[in-house]
Amino acid sequence: MREEYQADLIEVSRLLVTMAEAVRAALRKATTALLTADLKAAEAVMERDAEVDAIYEQVEAKVADTIARQAPVAGDLRRVITALHISADLERMGDLAEHVAKTASRRHPSPAVPAELRPTFKQMAEVADLMAEKITALLQNPDVNAAAELEKQDDAIDDLERHLFKIMLDDDWPYGAETAIDGALLGRFYERYADHAVNIGEHVIYLITGEPVSSQS
Amino acid sequence: MREEYQADLIEVSRLLVTMAEAVRAALRKATTALLTADLKAAEAVMERDAEVDAIYEQVEAKVADTIARQAPVAGDLRRVITALHISADLERMGDLAEHVAKTASRRHPSPAVPAELRPTFKQMAEVADLMAEKITALLQNPDVNAAAELEKQDDAIDDLERHLFKIMLDDDWPYGAETAIDGALLGRFYERYADHAVNIGEHVIYLITGEPVSSQS
Repeated sequence: MREEYQADLIEVSRLLVTMAEAVRAALRKATTALLTADLKAAEAVMERDAEVDAIYEQVEAKVADTIARQAPVAGDLRRVITALHISADLERMGDLAEHVAKTASRRHPSPAVPAELRPTFKQMAEVADLMAEKITALLQNPDVNAAAELEKQDDAIDDLERHLFKIMLDDDWPYGAETAIDGALLGRFYERYADHAVNIGEHVIYLITGEPVSSQS
Repeated sequence: MREEYQADLIEVSRLLVTMAEAVRAALRKATTALLTADLKAAEAVMERDAEVDAIYEQVEAKVADTIARQAPVAGDLRRVITALHISADLERMGDLAEHVAKTASRRHPSPAVPAELRPTFKQMAEVADLMAEKITALLQNPDVNAAAELEKQDDAIDDLERHLFKIMLDDDWPYGAETAIDGALLGRFYERYADHAVNIGEHVIYLITGEPVSSQS
């Protein structure tokens, strides 16, 4: 029984790592689509989001099956329930990468983001990518310190988002309302992607320490 | 044992209904704050979001406790796991109401929304309020038809959001980038609030029929 339970947990972790790798690849490709007006890249991200959703449903089914068959309690139960939260965050990160890709595709062949904003989006995407890399590692190797570093990276994303707004709200902003709206929504997609990565870090901390997860807003 | 399990489920449902009522009240008050530049209303929403988060944690704890003590399987297990998803959606609806209130508070004493956009936001808020009312009822009285109606209301919200964009993207839009950015983000907050209500409807359908929940994007 115990051995079976461990095998179940390993299977759930394997699914979560696959999801984390997929949503990381999705945001990288969506950023390429955004910054180089690459329609093919945008379409690839939109097509592949269904794969992330499918793994999400596999995690759900596997967790329910594990609880039903193994009747875990205490820490064991906590681990499988935490897996559900993590998969929900990952599923949403996939959606947000898809939103970035959709915006790029909607504006194609024009670039969705004017030259003035591109360096900031490039930086946001780089930090978000490091965060996705970190959660992939964390899922394989839980580590309280690494989880706390996600908070700092999230602060960097928030600063970059503020910088975006500063550029768009300048009196000299030449692009009008439409481009500003796209810029603000895109900024929010990256910022929310990073928030979900922080949530995952908090879930991992909860898993290790048993300290409750603070609710993000 | 069976009786205890039923009592646990009733307690979880009671918590979910309390959350649903709270996030409904939060968006009503946030909308008042937004449309009448009412700082007190905005501050009340921001203060009370912690209450929703606290109930969310109670649901988590109660579900874990129920699974550990009662070891439910099949449909019973499905019900308690679905309660977790519903509470996560409700918690996020509370956050989104808080975002509306924060935007109103940040622009105070100016109104965050110019007169041209107010009728559309008023309508979005009205539909969102009906959706929140419906999920509160659904949680007490699961009904597949009522859950499907949420989809239609969500379409109405999407149409209203498109209408917002149409106004802001008109060549005659006189308010510049900042007001357009606020308008776009606020539109998204209402739209996401409605999406979570639809998710809850889908979870209720899953609960009743056992048909898997489609993943929202």
